[in-house]
Amino acid sequence: MDLLPSDLVNRLVQDALAEDIGPGDATTVAIIPAEANAVACMRARETIVVAGLQFAEAAFRKLSPSVTIKWHSRDGKSEPAGSTLLEVSGPARALLSAERTALNFVQRLSGIATITASYVREVIKTAVQVLDTRKTTPGWRQLEKYAVKCGGGVNHRMGLYDLIMIKDNHLAALREAPEGAIAAAVAKARAAHPHLRVEVEADTMEQVQQAVAARADIILLDNMPLAQLREAVKLVNQRCETEASGGVTLATIRAIAETGVDYISVGALTHSARSVDIGLDFEE
Amino acid sequence: MDLLPSDLVNRLVQDALAEDIGPGDATTVAIIPAEANAVACMRARETIVVAGLQFAEAAFRKLSPSVTIKWHSRDGKSEPAGSTLLEVSGPARALLSAERTALNFVQRLSGIATITASYVREVIKTAVQVLDTRKTTPGWRQLEKYAVKCGGGVNHRMGLYDLIMIKDNHLAALREAPEGAIAAAVAKARAAHPHLRVEVEADTMEQVQQAVAARADIILLDNMPLAQLREAVKLVNQRCETEASGGVTLATIRAIAETGVDYISVGALTHSARSVDIGLDFEE
Amino acid sequence: MDLLPSDLVNRLVQDALAEDIGPGDATTVAIIPAEANAVACMRARETIVVAGLQFAEAAFRKLSPSVTIKWHSRDGKSEPAGSTLLEVSGPARALLSAERTALNFVQRLSGIATITASYVREVIKTAVQVLDTRKTTPGWRQLEKYAVKCGGGVNHRMGLYDLIMIKDNHLAALREAPEGAIAAAVAKARAAHPHLRVEVEADTMEQVQQAVAARADIILLDNMPLAQLREAVKLVNQRCETEASGGVTLATIRAIAETGVDYISVGALTHSARSVDIGLDFEE
Amino acid sequence: MDLLPSDLVNRLVQDALAEDIGPGDATTVAIIPAEANAVACMRARETIVVAGLQFAEAAFRKLSPSVTIKWHSRDGKSEPAGSTLLEVSGPARALLSAERTALNFVQRLSGIATITASYVREVIKTAVQVLDTRKTTPGWRQLEKYAVKCGGGVNHRMGLYDLIMIKDNHLAALREAPEGAIAAAVAKARAAHPHLRVEVEADTMEQVQQAVAARADIILLDNMPLAQLREAVKLVNQRCETEASGGVTLATIRAIAETGVDYISVGALTHSARSVDIGLDFEE
Amino acid sequence: MDLLPSDLVNRLVQDALAEDIGPGDATTVAIIPAEANAVACMRARETIVVAGLQFAEAAFRKLSPSVTIKWHSRDGKSEPAGSTLLEVSGPARALLSAERTALNFVQRLSGIATITASYVREVIKTAVQVLDTRKTTPGWRQLEKYAVKCGGGVNHRMGLYDLIMIKDNHLAALREAPEGAIAAAVAKARAAHPHLRVEVEADTMEQVQQAVAARADIILLDNMPLAQLREAVKLVNQRCETEASGGVTLATIRAIAETGVDYISVGALTHSARSVDIGLDFEE
Amino acid sequence: MDLLPSDLVNRLVQDALAEDIGPGDATTVAIIPAEANAVACMRARETIVVAGLQFAEAAFRKLSPSVTIKWHSRDGKSEPAGSTLLEVSGPARALLSAERTALNFVQRLSGIATITASYVREVIKTAVQVLDTRKTTPGWRQLEKYAVKCGGGVNHRMGLYDLIMIKDNHLAALREAPEGAIAAAVAKARAAHPHLRVEVEADTMEQVQQAVAARADIILLDNMPLAQLREAVKLVNQRCETEASGGVTLATIRAIAETGVDYISVGALTHSARSVDIGLDFEE
Repeated sequence: MDLLPSDLVNRLVQDALAEDIGPGDATTVAIIPAEANAVACMRARETIVVAGLQFAEAAFRKLSPSVTIKWHSRDGKSEPAGSTLLEVSGPARALLSAERTALNFVQRLSGIATITASYVREVIKTAVQVLDTRKTTPGWRQLEKYAVKCGGGVNHRMGLYDLIMIKDNHLAALREAPEGAIAAAVAKARAAHPHLRVEVEADTMEQVQQAVAARADIILLDNMPLAQLREAVKLVNQRCETEASGGVTLATIRAIAETGVDYISVGALTHSARSVDIGLDFEE
Repeated sequence: MDLLPSDLVNRLVQDALAEDIGPGDATTVAIIPAEANAVACMRARETIVVAGLQFAEAAFRKLSPSVTIKWHSRDGKSEPAGSTLLEVSGPARALLSAERTALNFVQRLSGIATITASYVREVIKTAVQVLDTRKTTPGWRQLEKYAVKCGGGVNHRMGLYDLIMIKDNHLAALREAPEGAIAAAVAKARAAHPHLRVEVEADTMEQVQQAVAARADIILLDNMPLAQLREAVKLVNQRCETEASGGVTLATIRAIAETGVDYISVGALTHSARSVDIGLDFEE
Repeated sequence: MDLLPSDLVNRLVQDALAEDIGPGDATTVAIIPAEANAVACMRARETIVVAGLQFAEAAFRKLSPSVTIKWHSRDGKSEPAGSTLLEVSGPARALLSAERTALNFVQRLSGIATITASYVREVIKTAVQVLDTRKTTPGWRQLEKYAVKCGGGVNHRMGLYDLIMIKDNHLAALREAPEGAIAAAVAKARAAHPHLRVEVEADTMEQVQQAVAARADIILLDNMPLAQLREAVKLVNQRCETEASGGVTLATIRAIAETGVDYISVGALTHSARSVDIGLDFEE
Repeated sequence: MDLLPSDLVNRLVQDALAEDIGPGDATTVAIIPAEANAVACMRARETIVVAGLQFAEAAFRKLSPSVTIKWHSRDGKSEPAGSTLLEVSGPARALLSAERTALNFVQRLSGIATITASYVREVIKTAVQVLDTRKTTPGWRQLEKYAVKCGGGVNHRMGLYDLIMIKDNHLAALREAPEGAIAAAVAKARAAHPHLRVEVEADTMEQVQQAVAARADIILLDNMPLAQLREAVKLVNQRCETEASGGVTLATIRAIAETGVDYISVGALTHSARSVDIGLDFEE
Repeated sequence: MDLLPSDLVNRLVQDALAEDIGPGDATTVAIIPAEANAVACMRARETIVVAGLQFAEAAFRKLSPSVTIKWHSRDGKSEPAGSTLLEVSGPARALLSAERTALNFVQRLSGIATITASYVREVIKTAVQVLDTRKTTPGWRQLEKYAVKCGGGVNHRMGLYDLIMIKDNHLAALREAPEGAIAAAVAKARAAHPHLRVEVEADTMEQVQQAVAARADIILLDNMPLAQLREAVKLVNQRCETEASGGVTLATIRAIAETGVDYISVGALTHSARSVDIGLDFEE
Repeated sequence: MDLLPSDLVNRLVQDALAEDIGPGDATTVAIIPAEANAVACMRARETIVVAGLQFAEAAFRKLSPSVTIKWHSRDGKSEPAGSTLLEVSGPARALLSAERTALNFVQRLSGIATITASYVREVIKTAVQVLDTRKTTPGWRQLEKYAVKCGGGVNHRMGLYDLIMIKDNHLAALREAPEGAIAAAVAKARAAHPHLRVEVEADTMEQVQQAVAARADIILLDNMPLAQLREAVKLVNQRCETEASGGVTLATIRAIAETGVDYISVGALTHSARSVDIGLDFEE
């Protein structure tokens, strides 16, 4: 895994610490002597795929440049319950004040990596790639897309700027005759952005046909039943790439993959991941 | 519900739009004429408790000051599947470019409000208050705590600065004799911050006893079985307030409430809420 | 022309005014009474294509919300020497203090629009599109790419994130056998970013051949003489798009266009544009 | 040459990298292994005066703290075509991703230094100083004024705050009798800002006379023909300093200098400099 | 003394240097050679209690990472006139340009520490704690509260968020019958913020009585004469804590302390402290 | 009085409110109904010169755009104890939450205006101007210099960038023969910054003589006894301007003014001003 840029990590960790600590960790400063040291281990309390250890490291370091950090795992790795992920030693105050912030990042990102891995596992030995969506927590898109990669998924577009995606609402607002709308939209998009790929959402076989004719790069087959997906893949016949979306669950993804589509996008990777259970154990 | 401060809302929406739109919404600007108008309704696609409509309004307004917004619901209200939450009309480009950002905020915050409401419903007709925790998405604490209130929950401390919370790790780092540690910690905390309340985590009946003796304001009864909770409440006998935490689920919260504790804190309100299903339907 | 987002405009104008005015416009505040009013016209002093009037408007408005602005032209329009572009009336202090900042934006952006228009004029009645490059002033990319559009040009990629561009240095760092390098690089790029288009730089006919075989979307024909360009276009035979770059001047662009390439990219649009002459005339 | 403050350099480089790389350098991360190393030399491809090497160094370092940089030249030095300016070695990814940003800074700043040096060379063996103006790229004033110094020029005021400059528009807004306007304006300025120097723009010999009588520190002789400049210098007779501006080109600056003025200000140093040609060559 | 977080210190010092130096220290750069070194000592010119040495260190370091700093004192220590507080050696330019900024921080913070210490000295051998207030310089609250601690004082609440403080204006806006207002206000506050302490302002003995009945944590006895303070302390009889405020001077604080209140809050610690005299002496 | 730029005011008020309110005004939101309205008057409780009413207005407006503000005074005006300065009506919550922030600004700035006016009153009917210094609260320089003008003072330089000020430490670091140091320093400064005035600090009559010979614009007569000041003024004989500094108090300033110096600078205006007493009275 390529790590996230340290600038991004540091900025987010700084803001998160400010949010939690505000004008000061009242308890820790009052009770713990400045010179007390401690050692603590971050441990998985269930089976997880790890993501976000950089954030934990940055949180401890930001509060004390003198902490020592030892990585016992790395992002993208699957770890059984009980595994130590990271060991940190240094001033007890820094460890206590950064604990919650460090855990909040790692629990949430590992939650996304873990659920992603479970989807990817279902489509093993198919050529399908599992994609994320733009249904991310505002402010966290780069992090959440990174966690998807940790879990073995592939990133769809980052935002509205790096892929043309023509949806029904675009066609509607265009107010062209239905049979010419996709062609017109693709032409306009190509002229304005010659270097971007063009994906077209299709809800019907007519639209699939029109998208192929308009030479779209990718066709989004939205909410189609399995039989229709199979038919669409056959109609496209490799002239464009195909992506299935809608109604994808752990129970259905295998069957969808077997229709022959190239990609399956899954909103749940980011919009419904729960934080996994990870704790920070202080050693005696 | 008191709304969130508009400064906070505007800043987060601005950053979220920048994240999604980056240097430009390539599709929309290429295809949709600048002068095209549209009307769209944000609708719940399952039963939800609403939270975060301000963010949707701000997202549309930020992209076009001339949009017209009509609220059909309000934060804190329960709405059945199919309800319209918000109606927006104005330049089609603004509606299309802000759609995902608006939905990402409302889906996530309503998800938290909805799960909170389900916990609160379980303890109906008890005196218990359902509290959140600090297990929030970094950068989103004020939002997520606001959504908890929309769901009928009560906010625990905002961060490390507005309540003294003495945990086992604080006591360990103190290296006092066990029987004197709580008293010593409370005394230090009181001296440093005379105006903050003091909560003490207790894992055993001895610690409960010591916390009462040290005149803690609140005792956190951590991960205790029901019988022990009951015993602790009896021992405390109103001299302090009591809070139960650990192992709280929809299945267990009623029984915990009936032990007589004053508060139950539930990490899952924020760390395991999924986004609820809400869509933006463009009118013909 | 679609205008730039007002947030971007306002932020840049605010910073520019802070840079020029610092702690205060010493001359104007000392000499001009607060209640004095004035009227001034921004006029072209040579023939130009206009770009950036929003910035002028924002600069005056930022210093006094009560100014009145009348646009006499618009971005993208060609105007002869002597034309009035904008008329502003209001507090004399605001007009005098914002004058230089307003002009600095409009002169520079109109300079880019004007030189772009002169390149576009040369390729009239060909199918070629004139593209810009990433050779922009750091911090000004969105503005300069906008000015290129005002002059009739088309934007190439915004940055390193919205198009795969495989250059010789990428191939070199890969350390594959030369004949397989392009295929390997395209394959890796496609797997990591299925939704981005792939452009491959080719310096030789062998590389053109390999890029076609690797199914690149676009081939960059770098620094090729006219005869070789013609040959490359023929070899590609519409299977990919083609872009010529290197050695493009007003004197050579027509001949390059006539080789049949789809795009010509011109660094000089942004890296060598001079500011055009525009003044602010105060009326008696 | 005194270098620019590293805070300023780092902030601008950070923003420039964010602008170019956005959410990620898609090509480089996909194709180049994280562990690949490379060596590259930044070389002048025409004769230049160097400015801005700090920015190149900062761009590479920001992407990888482990790069090694060797300076082969320094800001303010004239270098023939083919000279190596800087050598950088380290992770190939960092070198490739920072390349364009590093070049954009050095090419533009060296362009200003180079054109400045050509003006300065024309007035050799006169006492004249070549000054810049406020006609700079918004956001870049400190950089561009620094580049002027690299080329042997001298900086005029930084902005509206560090010199009183009374222009015709200030006098007009004052609505005094013409013969008393300059005296009144200078008096007001002196009273408000006793510690700032006062420069007065003069278009006629009467205004020159009035500026001398008002004890201006400097008189700006604006757009005067050579004969009139000579006459003005004689009239002033060392009682104030004199600055010529308007119509200054490489062809005319020598004759203007020989009229005896103390300064000549040249807008073209910053508003019409083109980027010079500099490349980054990767070693095999 | 626990030092202030270095992030806060660095940010404030950076802004302060930008404010003072702006685009450059014109004198120092023009006159002092870049390679000149110097040694200077920061010395108290009157008897002071020290606060803020971190800021001086940060100011010098920010302008030159190569300065050497030797602390001869520390925050919270009382030092006689003539004492050396800090010794700095390094590039003369850095020392000269940072001098005023370094002194402005240390003089102002030590001023607060010094006046605080004089109040604390008056109540020696009583159990009273001397508290600060929210009457601080906007933007400087954390700094000024830190300086109060350096002088031996104790911090009252940081802001409106970490303690409930019910004042007459809150009761008035409530428009309840006077005898029930305090009880109602306390009840509302407890329900909304179970984890915050509640302080009630009382101007009369009736209000003291009501506050005790409402189980306030602290009662603020505002502007009461000594006899009434004594009576109030007796009435409260340890059931709540008590704080006196209003009319507190060096001449009156001892008598107020002897009434038996727990705290005395003193606005003058921050709103009327003068900067103490500290200089930077350059060694030959 | 020209008011401060509203951008500056708004930014500082926003930060100050964030500092005081943090995540929320716990008391006010819990107790005061959202729909309650109130009227309050800001009143002087001692005789003051007013400064900073803009900040009060901005603080109330920021918390509720619907407040109504009526100014009963204006910056720069002297007001007797009991005068109403500003009347504000609107949502009670906004008034209560902004109260302290509004007062903190106005009390501190009016404190500076008031002490400045007392110094200016002492030198009435002399030609002397009372100047401030750079001994300001970091982050507050523009505000404090503005308050000095409200009190009838005149601003010295804003920072290190808008006036050359050659002090003993500059001369020492230069390591020239003492008799040539001033001349050399002035020459260097003039060459680097032709448009800035030059002030030279003189501690002895020899240095005064050298500064006159070097054609300094202003001579700073530092810490000289009255007799020596008189002698220096005579020696300078109008060839430069003169400024006295050091040992200036309300008791000594008149005598210093009568020596004939042009300016007297007083650090105490900003470094030792106490906040004046101003309150916010809520109407029944």
